[in-house]
Amino acid sequence: MALIMMRSVATTRRGFFKLKRSSSGIRAFSSLLTSPPSKAVVYERHGPADAVTRVIEMEGVEVKEKDVCVKMMAAPINPSDINRIEGVYPVRPPLPAIGGYEGVGEVLSVGSAVKHLSPGDWVIPSPPSSGTWQTYIVKEESVWHKISKDSPIEYAATITVNPLTALRMLQDFVTLNSGDCIVQNGATSIVGQCIIQLARHRGIHSINIIRDRVGSDEAKEMLKRLGADEVFTESQLEVKNIKGLLTNLPEPALGFNCVGGNSASLVLKFLRHGGTMVTYGGMSKKPITVSTSSFIFKDLSLRGFWLQKLMNSDKVNECRNLIDHLLCLAREGKLKYECVFVVRILSLFQSP
Amino acid sequence: MALIMMRSVATTRRGFFKLKRSSSGIRAFSSLLTSPPSKAVVYERHGPADAVTRVIEMEGVEVKEKDVCVKMMAAPINPSDINRIEGVYPVRPPLPAIGGYEGVGEVLSVGSAVKHLSPGDWVIPSPPSSGTWQTYIVKEESVWHKISKDSPIEYAATITVNPLTALRMLQDFVTLNSGDCIVQNGATSIVGQCIIQLARHRGIHSINIIRDRVGSDEAKEMLKRLGADEVFTESQLEVKNIKGLLTNLPEPALGFNCVGGNSASLVLKFLRHGGTMVTYGGMSKKPITVSTSSFIFKDLSLRGFWLQKLMNSDKVNECRNLIDHLLCLAREGKLKYECVFVVRILSLFQSP
Repeated sequence: MALIMMRSVATTRRGFFKLKRSSSGIRAFSSLLTSPPSKAVVYERHGPADAVTRVIEMEGVEVKEKDVCVKMMAAPINPSDINRIEGVYPVRPPLPAIGGYEGVGEVLSVGSAVKHLSPGDWVIPSPPSSGTWQTYIVKEESVWHKISKDSPIEYAATITVNPLTALRMLQDFVTLNSGDCIVQNGATSIVGQCIIQLARHRGIHSINIIRDRVGSDEAKEMLKRLGADEVFTESQLEVKNIKGLLTNLPEPALGFNCVGGNSASLVLKFLRHGGTMVTYGGMSKKPITVSTSSFIFKDLSLRGFWLQKLMNSDKVNECRNLIDHLLCLAREGKLKYECVFVVRILSLFQSP
Repeated sequence: MALIMMRSVATTRRGFFKLKRSSSGIRAFSSLLTSPPSKAVVYERHGPADAVTRVIEMEGVEVKEKDVCVKMMAAPINPSDINRIEGVYPVRPPLPAIGGYEGVGEVLSVGSAVKHLSPGDWVIPSPPSSGTWQTYIVKEESVWHKISKDSPIEYAATITVNPLTALRMLQDFVTLNSGDCIVQNGATSIVGQCIIQLARHRGIHSINIIRDRVGSDEAKEMLKRLGADEVFTESQLEVKNIKGLLTNLPEPALGFNCVGGNSASLVLKFLRHGGTMVTYGGMSKKPITVSTSSFIFKDLSLRGFWLQKLMNSDKVNECRNLIDHLLCLAREGKLKYECVFVVRILSLFQSP
C-alpha cells in the first residue's frame, strides 16, 4: 500500500467555478461548453467510509478553453482513500470532498485551447489527484496523461499508486544489479506483488514475509507463481539465525517495509551490512524499533517513500514515462495483480 | 562517545615476533635494534575492567627495518576501551590483549628502512590501533602519523576517537551552510562538546539535549560557553510543540544520537522535514523507536557512524589531514574539552 495525499475536487468543481464566473464577466457571454451532470461519491465529514460517504448528483460545469472533460471508466479504492475519508491522513482535503485519487477515463470534450488531447483518448490523472470517484471530471489538460487504448482497464485505473511506488522504490534508493536480492514484508499487497515481478524482470531475487493467517499456504503459492524466490510467514522467522534460512540467495541490500513492528525488525535482520530499509506503509500501526548497533556496526540506513511528494516534484514527466512502461508490462502479461478493489464506477452508480 | 574497534597488540608483540625469528634464521644474525622493556595494561579474559586488567612488564622486542619504536607519552581511557575489556564490543581482539586504542608518543628509534620519521618526532597511531596502554610500542612506520610538537599533549592523545568523529559526522551526511542548525543529545560528551565548537566555527547553530541530573545547570553553562545556542534537559522537552521552544533558530537538518530511547525520539522531533539523524552511540542501552509517518510523511533518514570502519577504508590520508586541522584548532584554543580520562601512562606506571 502506498499512502497518497488528496486535494478536494468538490471545491474545485463547485466553489472555484462559481467564483470564476462571477469574477470574469466576459466569459459569461462566450459560447459555453458544458460537461454532463455527474454522479459522485462525496463525504462532508470525516468518519467510517460506509457511514459518511453518499452518492450525489452534480450539475454540469463549464469546460473552459484549457479544460478537458473526461468520462471516468474505472477507479480503485486504495487504503489511502479510506484513510482520507476517515480523516487520519496527514494531509487532509477541505470538506466536502469527492473520494478517489486515481482512475482511468475517456476524453468526452475539450476546450478550444487544448492541444494534445482529443475526444476518445484514454487518460489518467497524473500525478493522481482527488475526486476520481465521479462519472465526469473537468480539469485542465496538464492534469491528464494520455495512455494507450489497448491497456487493460483495471491496470490503467490502478497503475500509479501501487505499481509506480514499487518501480520507484526499486530504483531510487540502492543500485541493484541482476543477481542481487531484496527483502520485503506485506508481500501480498499490490505493491508487494509488483515488487516481486518488477525485481524478477531485472533478474533480482526476492525474499518475502507474510502474516500468519488462514490461507497463508495459498498466498505463498500465489507469490511464488509471480516469481518470489522465498516466502516466509512471520512465525517461520522466529529463529536465532535468520540468514541460515537463505539457500543460494545473496544477503539483500534493500528492504521494503509496509507493516512496522516485529515485521519491520524481520526485514532489518535479513539486510546485509550497509543495507537500506525503505518504509512506505504501516499496516500494523506499530512503530519501527531499531538497535543502536544496527546503525553503528551494521551500517543500516532507514528511509521513507511517499509517491505523492515525488510526483508533485519535477519528476512528473519521468513518472509518466515509467507509467507507460508499467502499462506495457501489464499488456504483455509481465505485470499482474488482483484488482479486487477496482470499482467500475458506472456500474456502481447504476445499481440502486 | 565513539565506539572504536581494537586488535590485539599483545599477540603482535610476543607471538608474532617469536614466529618471525624462528622462520627467518638469516635475520637472527643481523645486528638487532631492540626496544626497551615495556610496562603494559593487559587483560587475559573479559570482565569488569578493574577486575581483569593488570600491569605487566614485557621484554624488549626487535625493531625491524620498517619498524618504529615509540615511547608513549599519554593515552586516554575511552568508553569503547572499557567495552572491549568487558567483551561487549562487537569486534573483539583475541586474548590476551593490551588495552587502549589511541594516544601520543615520541619516536625513540627507527629501523634502517624508515624514511619519514626520526627519533624525537611526535606521532599518533592513525588509524588508531590497539595496545596504546603501554610504555613502548614497536609498529611499522605506516601505522604512525607525525604531528606538530607544539600540540598540547592531552589533545594529541585524544584527537582521533572523539573530535574526528564529530568533524566527520558534521561533513559526511548533510551539506550544511552557515546559518543552518543541528540538534544532538548526549551533548556533554567529548564528541558533543566538539560538535558544538566545530559547528559554531562554521557558523552553524546547535540545539543540545542533556540528561536531567544534579549539576545540569552547570552543564548548560559550560556548553553555552563552548558556543551552544540552546541547551535543554530531557524533561524540559516534555511539551506538545517541541519546535515552539526554538527562538530564532531554523529547524535542524541534521541530528546526532549517542543515547537512544526517548532521547533519540527528542532528536527526531526537532528535525525538519527531510532531515537526517546519525546514531554513533547508545549510552542508555535502549533502542531507537520511530513512527511510520516519520519516514513517509516527514521523510526522515536514519543512519549510523563508526569511525573504525571509515579509517580502515581508503580515507586514511584524508582523515590524517583532518586530524592536523583539529590539532591546529586545539592549539589556537578554538577546540576545547575536558580530558578527565587521559592517563599519563608513565606517571601511572611509576605509582606503586
